[in-house]
Amino acid sequence: MKKHLSTILLAIFFVFSAIAHYAHLNPILQFVVSAIAVVLVAGFLGRATESVAHYAGQRLGGFLNATFGNAAELIIAIMLLREGLYDMVKASLTGSIIGNLLLVLGLSIFAGGVKHKIQNFNVALANMNGSLMIVAVIALFVPALFLNTHSITPTEVDTLSLIVAGLLIAAYVAWLIFSMITHKKYLEDVKDPKAPEDHEEPKWSKNKSILFLVIATVMTAFVSEWLVGTLETFTTDFGFSELFVGAFVVAIIGNAAEHSAAIMLAMKNKIGASVEIAVGSSLQIALFVAPVLIFVSFFLGNTMDIVFTTLELVAIMVSVFIAKSIIQDGSTNWYEGLLLLVTYIILGVSFYLV
Amino acid sequence: MKKHLSTILLAIFFVFSAIAHYAHLNPILQFVVSAIAVVLVAGFLGRATESVAHYAGQRLGGFLNATFGNAAELIIAIMLLREGLYDMVKASLTGSIIGNLLLVLGLSIFAGGVKHKIQNFNVALANMNGSLMIVAVIALFVPALFLNTHSITPTEVDTLSLIVAGLLIAAYVAWLIFSMITHKKYLEDVKDPKAPEDHEEPKWSKNKSILFLVIATVMTAFVSEWLVGTLETFTTDFGFSELFVGAFVVAIIGNAAEHSAAIMLAMKNKIGASVEIAVGSSLQIALFVAPVLIFVSFFLGNTMDIVFTTLELVAIMVSVFIAKSIIQDGSTNWYEGLLLLVTYIILGVSFYLV
Amino acid sequence: MKKHLSTILLAIFFVFSAIAHYAHLNPILQFVVSAIAVVLVAGFLGRATESVAHYAGQRLGGFLNATFGNAAELIIAIMLLREGLYDMVKASLTGSIIGNLLLVLGLSIFAGGVKHKIQNFNVALANMNGSLMIVAVIALFVPALFLNTHSITPTEVDTLSLIVAGLLIAAYVAWLIFSMITHKKYLEDVKDPKAPEDHEEPKWSKNKSILFLVIATVMTAFVSEWLVGTLETFTTDFGFSELFVGAFVVAIIGNAAEHSAAIMLAMKNKIGASVEIAVGSSLQIALFVAPVLIFVSFFLGNTMDIVFTTLELVAIMVSVFIAKSIIQDGSTNWYEGLLLLVTYIILGVSFYLV
Repeated sequence: MKKHLSTILLAIFFVFSAIAHYAHLNPILQFVVSAIAVVLVAGFLGRATESVAHYAGQRLGGFLNATFGNAAELIIAIMLLREGLYDMVKASLTGSIIGNLLLVLGLSIFAGGVKHKIQNFNVALANMNGSLMIVAVIALFVPALFLNTHSITPTEVDTLSLIVAGLLIAAYVAWLIFSMITHKKYLEDVKDPKAPEDHEEPKWSKNKSILFLVIATVMTAFVSEWLVGTLETFTTDFGFSELFVGAFVVAIIGNAAEHSAAIMLAMKNKIGASVEIAVGSSLQIALFVAPVLIFVSFFLGNTMDIVFTTLELVAIMVSVFIAKSIIQDGSTNWYEGLLLLVTYIILGVSFYLV
Repeated sequence: MKKHLSTILLAIFFVFSAIAHYAHLNPILQFVVSAIAVVLVAGFLGRATESVAHYAGQRLGGFLNATFGNAAELIIAIMLLREGLYDMVKASLTGSIIGNLLLVLGLSIFAGGVKHKIQNFNVALANMNGSLMIVAVIALFVPALFLNTHSITPTEVDTLSLIVAGLLIAAYVAWLIFSMITHKKYLEDVKDPKAPEDHEEPKWSKNKSILFLVIATVMTAFVSEWLVGTLETFTTDFGFSELFVGAFVVAIIGNAAEHSAAIMLAMKNKIGASVEIAVGSSLQIALFVAPVLIFVSFFLGNTMDIVFTTLELVAIMVSVFIAKSIIQDGSTNWYEGLLLLVTYIILGVSFYLV
Repeated sequence: MKKHLSTILLAIFFVFSAIAHYAHLNPILQFVVSAIAVVLVAGFLGRATESVAHYAGQRLGGFLNATFGNAAELIIAIMLLREGLYDMVKASLTGSIIGNLLLVLGLSIFAGGVKHKIQNFNVALANMNGSLMIVAVIALFVPALFLNTHSITPTEVDTLSLIVAGLLIAAYVAWLIFSMITHKKYLEDVKDPKAPEDHEEPKWSKNKSILFLVIATVMTAFVSEWLVGTLETFTTDFGFSELFVGAFVVAIIGNAAEHSAAIMLAMKNKIGASVEIAVGSSLQIALFVAPVLIFVSFFLGNTMDIVFTTLELVAIMVSVFIAKSIIQDGSTNWYEGLLLLVTYIILGVSFYLV
């Protein structure tokens, strides 16, 4: 029953946002329905990925899950790239990273902490994640600094961007090997499986899963494009900056599916799984989605450089520091969640005022 | 006998600094006697607060102790505000934070470490304090950065300052709820009560305590004003910067009472209590005193913004990093105290040369 | 036999590089042979130091080992100072610090991790090292910041540099007292001796050891001077920056001996000793070699200030952060080594492009 309801809702909002887009209805209406459609379609894409991953066996499945986990964000970002909205691409990547590290992690830790007082998870995973996040920050920060302090030609900027992007993807692939092959046991949570329970029994047959994955990907591409088309309204009519729209509006919509999953798991006292979703998603953005976008733009003929603005870099650094400080002892409580949320609000207000 | 002596000293220096002030004696003499008077009066105010807190019961008492703990600094800062010395207010806040994190904590850890080799305290508290300090740094750092890199109107600066100040006070109130109500046991030191032994038996009756608290507050207001009046001498006659006077002279005088208490406790092997005084005081300055001053200046009609200078921000950041690094394992030794003191001297020399 | 071989090689390359230098052979050839000679002579100097240290008894021996451990780098740097190549001195100091923290530590952890899966070492030492590294960064960072944001006279810059240098040497001496006298046991590795096995039985008699130490020091001075003379070729003929040559070419040659020792130990599962070599060397550079060079330049009549460039400071900061994050849990694996190497490559590419 519940399953049918979500399928019906998905279909309705997909059709509705198509109509809104092609009939040029009111831009606000277009934005609202396509935003809801993106959230629903991203959820569908997530379930289809998990189902295919189930049939692919543990290792390949884990790889699929990890790599397609941010497929919706990647597709939205490619749509933004095609429109030439490079600043908004970077803002939405920034927003995804800080949204996962502050909002998703903060709400999960807060909600879980209110219910369970103290929650614990594997310290080894927290430490590894912390170090990886620092390397991601360094990879984004060093090129920006070199560019701001030295005269470097645009070609050199592109070269540096592609080299750093290549290194990040290599680090990401090595991380998959490390976390899924050589040190799988070492990173496992003490008591709980990492993934939601519905992983256990896939709803769909193998062929149906693959078919749904293809359909969901195509649908995501469409609704993402419709959504991206409405964003101009915010910058031109309401005077919001691309930075704010990318970092807060786009990022929150693109990550809605992860948000609800992580919070649910925290309330079921599976805080380790919540941390993995939130931190894992932000790492995927920095180590996989961002570098892939640089290569995509390179093949499209106009390389997007890896140089984020000072504000974006500071927002990312600040989020990494506070998140690392909070997860590094492998224990969380409601106040730590609150601190993450306070940091998110401070950044939000500041981005809004720019 | 000892108690009587301190009362007599207090009275003598209070009267003496009043005479020096109203008779316009030599400014250096005025400064010396009012500085000593502030130290003595602040000690009296601290004892009166503790005594009232004792009668108020554990929760309200803890709240009173925590919130009035920096009453002397708050009063001095309000006197500086009234004189329009906004730069010196910020410098003295900076000085209080780094003075507590580097000088008080450094001397306590060094003195305790020389006597006891290795001293341990509750890691959970150290971790929470570390995360809170990082949020405080972020709250001060982000607005300053946004202002330095973007054109923002003065009104927007004031709005941002008031919002951030409100968030910090909210975080502080939530911290009191967390540390005194929901997670009191969790943060307690392994073997020792957190507070000095003389907490156990208050010297004064309930009514006497309240009377003394009122008297001490009024006295603090007077001697603070007299002290503030003499500070101009340093900047005009000796050529010291407001930054140096605020950050080192005012801050050391305002925190003298905490200094001696924290060092005593460390030598009695109650390093957990020392850490709580030093780190707790610096957190109170950042999360409570600074935001309250912004609201006070707002109600006085000329909002002080939350934008500290680059040097002040760096001094605070640097202090937080090294203090966090040293306390985060819940274990200290004399060399760690020395490192904090070396950092304090480096900052002091640099501020002096500016 | 093996010993004889290394002696013969040393003699051959020493003579060969002397010929290359005085006969003004091809600069590339001069560079190659004098670089190899430096590596071999530095190895000889290291063995002679260890042998003298053995006879000097545990305490004085530890002191000799620690202080003469970077004798080769110190001598090379003094040769650069005499040539007035101050920028290259600072670049080579930077390169030594990041080379030890990223390349040596990274290769050791990676190689050890591939062979042994998880390697553990004393957490107390890791924590102390982390805090010391932060103080070293602060000591280099604060003066640079004050200079960049304020108008300070050259005399004041020199004064500040000498004061900070004095504080760093004091902190270094206190560290030797702490780690070799008051808290020796506390920092010891859980299962293993810290030093290579050949420490146990010195090859040479007492008098021979002292003689060899003198000879090795003199030889190091000569080959260093010959090497330094060839470096101009890189900057003038190949267009490399002094920064790149100092930070990568000079630093790798000067540290080659430590590199091989640290990696060997890691593969023998003595990761604690590797960490001590790598982190210890970088601390010696920051706390002892750099300040000594400032005093040397002061006595030579033209004080080298302690102000590193922004890029150098960021490279050092970034290296300290990631190294601290990785060692602070007292446990390492191959992926953590890889992260250090990725960071090293990012910095290398960026320095190269400048």
